[in-house]
Amino acid sequence: MPVNLVSPSSHELHPVKGVLLGVAEANIRKPNRKDLLVMQLAAGSRVAGVFTQNRFCAAPVVLCKEHLSSGDEIRALLVNTGNANAGTGEDGLMRARRSCEALAGLLNCADSQVLPFSTGVIMEPLPVERVVAGLPACIADLKEDNWLNAAQAIMTTDIVAKGASRRVEIGGRAITVTGIAKGSGMIHPNMATMLGYIATDAPVAQRALEAMIHHAVNHSFNCITVDGDTSTNDSLILIATGQAGCAEIVDMHGAEYRALQEAVTAVAMQLAQAIVRDGEGATKFMTIQVQGGRDQSECRKIGYAIAHSPLIKTAFFASDPNLGRILAAIGYAGVADLDVNLVKLYLGDVLVAENGGRAASYQEADGQRVMKEAEITVRVVLGRGKAESTVWTCDFSYDYVKINADYRT
Amino acid sequence: MPVNLVSPSSHELHPVKGVLLGVAEANIRKPNRKDLLVMQLAAGSRVAGVFTQNRFCAAPVVLCKEHLSSGDEIRALLVNTGNANAGTGEDGLMRARRSCEALAGLLNCADSQVLPFSTGVIMEPLPVERVVAGLPACIADLKEDNWLNAAQAIMTTDIVAKGASRRVEIGGRAITVTGIAKGSGMIHPNMATMLGYIATDAPVAQRALEAMIHHAVNHSFNCITVDGDTSTNDSLILIATGQAGCAEIVDMHGAEYRALQEAVTAVAMQLAQAIVRDGEGATKFMTIQVQGGRDQSECRKIGYAIAHSPLIKTAFFASDPNLGRILAAIGYAGVADLDVNLVKLYLGDVLVAENGGRAASYQEADGQRVMKEAEITVRVVLGRGKAESTVWTCDFSYDYVKINADYRT
Repeated sequence: MPVNLVSPSSHELHPVKGVLLGVAEANIRKPNRKDLLVMQLAAGSRVAGVFTQNRFCAAPVVLCKEHLSSGDEIRALLVNTGNANAGTGEDGLMRARRSCEALAGLLNCADSQVLPFSTGVIMEPLPVERVVAGLPACIADLKEDNWLNAAQAIMTTDIVAKGASRRVEIGGRAITVTGIAKGSGMIHPNMATMLGYIATDAPVAQRALEAMIHHAVNHSFNCITVDGDTSTNDSLILIATGQAGCAEIVDMHGAEYRALQEAVTAVAMQLAQAIVRDGEGATKFMTIQVQGGRDQSECRKIGYAIAHSPLIKTAFFASDPNLGRILAAIGYAGVADLDVNLVKLYLGDVLVAENGGRAASYQEADGQRVMKEAEITVRVVLGRGKAESTVWTCDFSYDYVKINADYRT
Repeated sequence: MPVNLVSPSSHELHPVKGVLLGVAEANIRKPNRKDLLVMQLAAGSRVAGVFTQNRFCAAPVVLCKEHLSSGDEIRALLVNTGNANAGTGEDGLMRARRSCEALAGLLNCADSQVLPFSTGVIMEPLPVERVVAGLPACIADLKEDNWLNAAQAIMTTDIVAKGASRRVEIGGRAITVTGIAKGSGMIHPNMATMLGYIATDAPVAQRALEAMIHHAVNHSFNCITVDGDTSTNDSLILIATGQAGCAEIVDMHGAEYRALQEAVTAVAMQLAQAIVRDGEGATKFMTIQVQGGRDQSECRKIGYAIAHSPLIKTAFFASDPNLGRILAAIGYAGVADLDVNLVKLYLGDVLVAENGGRAASYQEADGQRVMKEAEITVRVVLGRGKAESTVWTCDFSYDYVKINADYRT
């Protein structure tokens, strides 16, 4: 069950002026579930995206990049679940193109003004005729106050819908930032995880928007892992509709930029953590802080070595402070000249290891107390510099195996 | 249950002249089980070792390296299970030294002529007084024909004892190569996995012995993974007692060297595969062949990406040909300029994917047929060179989670 995570209520997800959302049950893979989403953007919206670095990136990811780089103004996003349209070669590209064409026809725009997204089973042909048949229902459903429905429509193995919203005053105007995302397996973003959409009504120059999405990703989706598998379809989109009526944000050193960036990053972080809280089979939410490194890269290496270790994840599932497994992961993370005698390991507030071994003050009962919590912080202090990095992850349970052994049935 | 693996019978493990083995129940962690092993080597034996690259390497690993580099002739090996003496700092080193001293005293040799090994729980103090108390029983038990008992004494979560033996004629003499090893979790050798001991009665020059162990490791223990966790205690030892009475093997290009190397590598490979077959919770044995790469390193990257993916391992557990997950792993393995349109993926003899997607000829029923087998070969042809690499691994089952959630109870 998700760790301290409930679905947002519909009034918590503030509408963003200039973004209309419509969902439908298109029967893509299973009947009687919302599986198709259209987001229509007001004229003048700016859009930035970051995508998976998986070489087998999905057909819709290829088209997204193509359409974004065309320079044409993006007017709509089209998302289906149930089928990832990945590992589908030329035929998959054709099917993704056909779905863009169909939506462009209905909205009177060019195909290149539509961004397509898919998530679900890999290596099966996208039932594009079902996507096309579902579009009119999506369009009939288009409205501003529809974010929760949209969050539900993009779920796959997610148990809980994921959305976050912030309001911030910029230049005397109330600005809204609202986002949705979905997980919950094949989560080790080498960029963003699976699908995420964040929109603001602030007007933002394109370069500033690109900088903002990268900052947000690096502090959110790029800090999480469920199972270490980088998906073929990861996509995060940041939309600025400019409908709020304040001056365009251009200066990346200005207070307006910083205020908006903070709100966007906060939404991204909440969404990213929600994906981990709802990670497949998750029963614990773990924050891995690695501090005192020479650079961020070595801190991340150690953080991910801990976060990916099946031995550590199963020990957390069992609430067993088998902390030698964490030392082992620190040791094999690939920091070649690490002096283990300088390393300190904390579980919550408890000092567990120092001087190359168990801390003299450590009592198993203290470790046990921390391990029983649903939210656990592991802190590693390397003692060789000032860099730090945080990774969020979840534990590894019977249900992870069950979910993934049964995924296609 | 182990995949097509049964314990060797005692007559299958041929004695090696110059190696005496003795075991005892020393009550290190649990009563009524063999947990202490002494191997006594004849004067004139040569010994080579390779060890974990984990920075948190265990105290006995530190001492092994120290004693091997002293140049003193190694006369005995001492192995305990139940406690890894890793993550134990200065105190752990002291305890490892005390156990070497005790054995050296009983065998009338110097401390530096003893190599110590430990495996079991990390970050708990080695009960060295129990080790010392158990030594007389080991010594009373010393005999040549005792390899199976030794294999049993070094087991931890292993279900089946692991041993292999070859006889080969070199220079007109019958030469024996016999080895034992143990797994079965924290298995992703960055050198060798956990503990392995191989001995031959052939006389081999030190340089040739070092070359031989590296060749054997690179074709065996360095090609396996159970869970991607590199242990703190990995050690592989190759012993040449020289008791067979033929001429010393010095020339690394000679037929004698090659014949012995082949036998040693065959024993190492059988032991390494046995560790995977008995991997924690294993129900399938998978051979991942990556071919047509530019170099071996990129083939290994892709092989290990597949072998480490929890999504792939759980799909194999379920006998579900969810092959898109394999494409995804190929895509995220880190080969930055991989042209996915050139990649071919085979499951057993079935072509599954080509041209960036599912092969036109592929039928789910064919994939299903292969997936139902207990031994499955995944073959990836990259189409960009002539290098290749093989990784052996196992699937990921409920029992893996169970074993590791309950490990310390």
